[in-house]
Amino acid sequence: MVRIFVNGFGTIGKRVASAIMKQEDMELVGVAKKTPDHKAYVANRQGIPLYVLDNEHIELFEEHGIKVAGVLRDVVDNIDVFIDTSPKGIGERNKLFYEAHKKIAIFQGGEKPEVAEVSFTAQANYRDAIGKRYIRVVSCNTTAIARILVELGKIAPIRRVRVVLVRRAADPWESKKGPINAIVPSLKIPSHHADDVKTVLGEIDIMTTAVVVPTTIMHMHILNVEFADNVDKSLLIDKLIEAPRIIVIPSKKLKLDSTASIIELARDMGRERNDIYEVMVFDESIKLHGRELWMMYAVHQEAIVVPENIDAVRAAYKLCDDPETSIKKTDRSLGILSRL
Amino acid sequence: MVRIFVNGFGTIGKRVASAIMKQEDMELVGVAKKTPDHKAYVANRQGIPLYVLDNEHIELFEEHGIKVAGVLRDVVDNIDVFIDTSPKGIGERNKLFYEAHKKIAIFQGGEKPEVAEVSFTAQANYRDAIGKRYIRVVSCNTTAIARILVELGKIAPIRRVRVVLVRRAADPWESKKGPINAIVPSLKIPSHHADDVKTVLGEIDIMTTAVVVPTTIMHMHILNVEFADNVDKSLLIDKLIEAPRIIVIPSKKLKLDSTASIIELARDMGRERNDIYEVMVFDESIKLHGRELWMMYAVHQEAIVVPENIDAVRAAYKLCDDPETSIKKTDRSLGILSRL
Repeated sequence: MVRIFVNGFGTIGKRVASAIMKQEDMELVGVAKKTPDHKAYVANRQGIPLYVLDNEHIELFEEHGIKVAGVLRDVVDNIDVFIDTSPKGIGERNKLFYEAHKKIAIFQGGEKPEVAEVSFTAQANYRDAIGKRYIRVVSCNTTAIARILVELGKIAPIRRVRVVLVRRAADPWESKKGPINAIVPSLKIPSHHADDVKTVLGEIDIMTTAVVVPTTIMHMHILNVEFADNVDKSLLIDKLIEAPRIIVIPSKKLKLDSTASIIELARDMGRERNDIYEVMVFDESIKLHGRELWMMYAVHQEAIVVPENIDAVRAAYKLCDDPETSIKKTDRSLGILSRL
Repeated sequence: MVRIFVNGFGTIGKRVASAIMKQEDMELVGVAKKTPDHKAYVANRQGIPLYVLDNEHIELFEEHGIKVAGVLRDVVDNIDVFIDTSPKGIGERNKLFYEAHKKIAIFQGGEKPEVAEVSFTAQANYRDAIGKRYIRVVSCNTTAIARILVELGKIAPIRRVRVVLVRRAADPWESKKGPINAIVPSLKIPSHHADDVKTVLGEIDIMTTAVVVPTTIMHMHILNVEFADNVDKSLLIDKLIEAPRIIVIPSKKLKLDSTASIIELARDMGRERNDIYEVMVFDESIKLHGRELWMMYAVHQEAIVVPENIDAVRAAYKLCDDPETSIKKTDRSLGILSRL
């Protein structure tokens, strides 16, 4: 039993906490939060011990009707692994605390790669992370690209990767963030994703460009890959269907033709918080032209990195020495599919 | 055990079907669908017997990989009550079929009031519906207004009601419907809601106006009521807190300050499909000025009528002769709250 603490209880933190509670080899010691908002209320409701950063916060939380289990420093001796899901850049500061207490820490993709010994996507480089003290789970978009490229690389050597990322503007709960009526280009080319993919996959020829559009539910990637050889389309589809954490959706057959209908499917399937941990590839979008492949897939920014955090704990704490076993365990616990 | 068939498996139908499966006094015989899309796939996944309208449809569904339980007419003798959740106006045609087979039928608010013997909202006029053969559950907006007015009427006589409805443009799964960047006024004043409220509450002085805005998640009402007497604000809040199916949300305390954060709360609370059956009143918006009240509340268009359909079955089939018992039963089965 690894005893885990989730530092931060926002979009990622609350999901990672739920996921830990579903693992038979992990125990959730608690979570920490700075603001006594409705997410704190949710932690109370779910019976998750909620810690604050110092004594002064206790009163503030209690004034808002939120029960507090204690102060983080008082529980630190009962913790084996911290999963840091605090806002971008804060993880780096928190690292001083984890170091002082000699604790393993898993960071998120908002942190710089230097915060950790290894940047991580389970099906790409699980073995590199075994026994590491500091691991960084890369961001949602990078995770999706890494998963897809690892699987495509099994079909034929990849010569060149070009990705256009059409990004969601905000998360669903956010009502004070734009744009609401514009397409915003990320003017730095390549976008930061290209370099981020290399932190996981090593040196490859990849260029990424990105725009932000007024939607909150999912990202969409338009991927263009050049293989070293011609590849067979049905072989390619078979490989993607077999691959974990990637679903090839029958877009025409079942009228799953937008991010909206994909989220609706997740709601209908009873997924907690309508979470989609899988990369959702539109089957009709898969187009081969000589050695070149195009395809489009949707990425649920709130959920896709959740299983990666669970696998990162297993690698760091040496609970499991091969990726397949850890991935299978995680996927079974969260109901993650490789096909519909 | 009432044996129920849900005719239509769209936004309302799929939710009503789920709700029926949670009732101890009801049995879901099956559902019917016209199109073999992802919702049909979901019915299969949930183990809900899926019927089609004629033999020709069987082949079409099977071509799409959807399992069909049979044709509707073959199962009609095993059905006590039909809940018709087919698109607006189709219920009226289906009524010919229900009449021919002498079956009880519950219709939705998209149908004209004349389709049924009574228009229905459980906490307003349950008793009027007892033993009726044809009941019409009014639309989401009308249901919300009726619930609120019934409870406000217990505090003091209501003289005048003015409501502005700020309506969502489409349901979350819809990607081919606008507006995406406009506010569309419903130029007929009053909007149809005023007359619809009267089908439930009888003759009252009510005027409703409506605009459609580019959002998919919830409606919002800005309500203005004139009472016959001065009323006490804390008494009013207490009454709303006690009332079933109405939640007064601590908007400032828990930062629940938009429809977006309300939906997020529903996701976090593990509500199936993030459904909110309750009228969600923002506590800070409650303003009394002499005998006049203003308040704002959010209405989840996909879910609010689901419990009403369950209660309508109980009234029609005489399973329960008082509204309180039926409402409590339904609310317990669906996790419906009267407060956070």
